[in-house]
Amino acid sequence: MQFDIESLKYNQAGLIPAIVQEYQTGQVLMMAWMNREAVEKTMTSGETWFFSRSRNKMWKKGETSGHIQRVKSLYYDCDGDTLLIQVEQVGGAACHEGYVSCFHYKVKTDGSVVTEGEQKFEPAEVYGMR
Amino acid sequence: MQFDIESLKYNQAGLIPAIVQEYQTGQVLMMAWMNREAVEKTMTSGETWFFSRSRNKMWKKGETSGHIQRVKSLYYDCDGDTLLIQVEQVGGAACHEGYVSCFHYKVKTDGSVVTEGEQKFEPAEVYGMR
Repeated sequence: MQFDIESLKYNQAGLIPAIVQEYQTGQVLMMAWMNREAVEKTMTSGETWFFSRSRNKMWKKGETSGHIQRVKSLYYDCDGDTLLIQVEQVGGAACHEGYVSCFHYKVKTDGSVVTEGEQKFEPAEVYGMR
Repeated sequence: MQFDIESLKYNQAGLIPAIVQEYQTGQVLMMAWMNREAVEKTMTSGETWFFSRSRNKMWKKGETSGHIQRVKSLYYDCDGDTLLIQVEQVGGAACHEGYVSCFHYKVKTDGSVVTEGEQKFEPAEVYGMR
């Protein structure tokens, strides 16, 4: 069977969620949204592109920081409404806060929140003071 | 800091996406949506609950199949708009099609789609003929 970008189920805004996972460690790095064009550009370029709902435009992961994601594998789920993309994370950190993963806030069983994982870079040094 | 269920960002329908990952292998099993009540019930019961957009009601993972998910860790991301839940998957398979992961459709670089992973059960035997 050949992959058909139109066979995916996009939401009312024309977007589909994409989970990004480090291909060697299995760590889940982030979740972001793609429109059809971002799916296509991710597949043809081999680097991840997303669609920003707040800025209403496509963006390339790493366009500012240089921390791009090289696509190793791409999956879609049984409902065809979510993507899973395994990548090599250049720079070692996906999160704009400098952490390896955007999921660095852990809720413990006592209800307290702890920050987990190593901070790989100082955001102000990568993005400048904003 | 104490976790506050209201600090999460829910979409216009009051839902937040939850990525479910096997806690030992790191395999991403599925993505589904939760409302505030499902987040709360998942945290208090230690088993995953979701909200079905098509059926417009909460559902417990494994309520029909017995293949529940025991929560090991719960994270939220830097934007507070996505959850990552690490679980022990009872029965070894999360997908209603009998596969370990719902993400068993792999798009290869030549654009062909292959099914990847082991089918752990026959859906008709678990859910009955529907």
